[in-house]
Amino acid sequence: MMRIGVVGGGQLGRMMAEAGAGFDARFTFLDPSDSACAALHGRHIQAGWEDQAAHESLIANSDVVTFEFENIAAEAVTRLAEQCPAFPPAKALATAQDRWAEKSLFRSLGIPLPQVARVDSQADLDAAVAEIGLPAVLKTRTLGYDGKGQKVLREATDVAGAFAALGKAPLVLEGFVDFDHEVSVIAVRGRSGEVRVWPLVRNEHRQGMLHCSIPQPGHPLQALAEDYAHRVLAELDYVGVMAFEFFVTGDALLANEIAPRVHNSGHWTIEGAETSQFENHLRAIADLPLGAVAPLVPCAMLNVIGAFPDRRAVLEVPGTRWHDYGKAPRPGRKIGHITVLASSEEQLSERIAAVESLLVNDLG
Amino acid sequence: MMRIGVVGGGQLGRMMAEAGAGFDARFTFLDPSDSACAALHGRHIQAGWEDQAAHESLIANSDVVTFEFENIAAEAVTRLAEQCPAFPPAKALATAQDRWAEKSLFRSLGIPLPQVARVDSQADLDAAVAEIGLPAVLKTRTLGYDGKGQKVLREATDVAGAFAALGKAPLVLEGFVDFDHEVSVIAVRGRSGEVRVWPLVRNEHRQGMLHCSIPQPGHPLQALAEDYAHRVLAELDYVGVMAFEFFVTGDALLANEIAPRVHNSGHWTIEGAETSQFENHLRAIADLPLGAVAPLVPCAMLNVIGAFPDRRAVLEVPGTRWHDYGKAPRPGRKIGHITVLASSEEQLSERIAAVESLLVNDLG
Repeated sequence: MMRIGVVGGGQLGRMMAEAGAGFDARFTFLDPSDSACAALHGRHIQAGWEDQAAHESLIANSDVVTFEFENIAAEAVTRLAEQCPAFPPAKALATAQDRWAEKSLFRSLGIPLPQVARVDSQADLDAAVAEIGLPAVLKTRTLGYDGKGQKVLREATDVAGAFAALGKAPLVLEGFVDFDHEVSVIAVRGRSGEVRVWPLVRNEHRQGMLHCSIPQPGHPLQALAEDYAHRVLAELDYVGVMAFEFFVTGDALLANEIAPRVHNSGHWTIEGAETSQFENHLRAIADLPLGAVAPLVPCAMLNVIGAFPDRRAVLEVPGTRWHDYGKAPRPGRKIGHITVLASSEEQLSERIAAVESLLVNDLG
Repeated sequence: MMRIGVVGGGQLGRMMAEAGAGFDARFTFLDPSDSACAALHGRHIQAGWEDQAAHESLIANSDVVTFEFENIAAEAVTRLAEQCPAFPPAKALATAQDRWAEKSLFRSLGIPLPQVARVDSQADLDAAVAEIGLPAVLKTRTLGYDGKGQKVLREATDVAGAFAALGKAPLVLEGFVDFDHEVSVIAVRGRSGEVRVWPLVRNEHRQGMLHCSIPQPGHPLQALAEDYAHRVLAELDYVGVMAFEFFVTGDALLANEIAPRVHNSGHWTIEGAETSQFENHLRAIADLPLGAVAPLVPCAMLNVIGAFPDRRAVLEVPGTRWHDYGKAPRPGRKIGHITVLASSEEQLSERIAAVESLLVNDLG
């Protein structure tokens, strides 16, 4: 038995609980929503993210606390971590919450990244555009995800008033990267410092949301990605799963962002790897030896967004596995995913195409 | 979403619920125990197996009802099945509950089996011993499992009074089989008649309880076992997972028994096969297409009986997966299992040996 407290009660917490079943783990989720989908698998404390009484209740029910939602004030995390083992560390959450802090971390560790400038005013923006050039992407420093809180600037007319258009919040301007493709790397670090890194994953986005993730065992940039991951994990004295997103340009990796939690691009590991990201996250925070992360067979993950395809038709495609998060369908909402397993790369491509033809992903 | 009612709330129901998570399945378990371990994953109706009000409540909460415990009176199952889709069919449960009916089914389908005689009195027993010879195994026709309700007769003195010693219940006498090893086959049949058969599994028992199961892909008797499985499944118009136990003698298979449910010797499929026995059981009863059943990597399952080994030490053996059923430890009780995955047969043997050296299985 182990008692796990999770800040956040969405699908990431839900799949964490599913991975904890073999450990007879008991979960408590803190989430303000009355329909937190993880609540199916544990106790649900319905309260604000930083509600102190809720934190006390979470701690009272947990041997260790973790996060599937990272946008909670760093001070609240620090206070929580003073009362109970809590991973990942507050510093990692604070860094990931702030794009400027995140980019600065990459730079300080010698990890290449796109051109970037800090933007706290329209004047800063004008200066940054002059330096970086167009096109470029203007992003809020905090609270952006799935393409929200960002704006692509293509020509001079897009620049005028853009600072105000993004709410006069602290921003960063990122140089546009003419990348070959996007990859992510999921890594896990245990309380003892042990690190495991799953194979690099190729990601395809549509309308700013992740559409498809395909692990790429043997990718020529694997060693480089692992090197970068090790640097960040060690610097943050990290515990748990972390996701790293990179742009691939030729034989270089440019760091885009980190997520201090289990990640959508790692869902394929549930069926496709020796140990899933969810199980290894639990092993890490519970101070257990980490599981091996080798891929088992060619596989892919396709997100289900807004509406489910016909379940029978999908399951008639061989090698498919259905993941319904139990969330109310809504345009643009991630409500599930489908894993596709195959015995060869060619067969995998055929099966992905078959599933894609059935998807009715409605981005609203 | 699917609503599943399960008669029985032990580890088989618990793992069924774990497999149902991706379908957003909601489970209700009927079990008289106040500590039914499946209750962690759903609603628990605590009542007798044949309690009519409990059956009504189960049906009200379920789109389909299934069984993880088969020793419930056939009439109760028949009544239940009249009110709600319920699988497997009552006839299959009734057959599996009665060793004589089971052996008669094998015989009627041309499936070889050990010598067997029906024993309803000491006189029957004496006649059966004269015909079959010694050693032989005397078993109750109903309610035997894990070596309970049976007695090995080695010499004439064991025969005298043996009918009374087993409670004067209806019995069968089975000829002793000098087998090479024991195997089981897990098969699943959908509501449409579609059948899938996992690879044959080699089982090792200790003190009458299953100790270890190792799938044997490519076993020379696979086709024969599948043929026998198909005959039984079709005859019973079966829906769901069924386990078949055979003795291997040279190039023959002798049928030992069937279990009309998911089975301990199929637990390796959770990590080791394209689709687990639990998921395919749910797909079958919910009338969804069945998943592929090919094995992914060399693997094995070791039961945890009575007491857990050191968790950290087990997880330090690469490729191990921990399954704690959340049951109170008690001598001779199955409280969990450990799956071992490997990349070669040789590595698998090493890892099995490493885990076995850690087991403290206490058979009381």
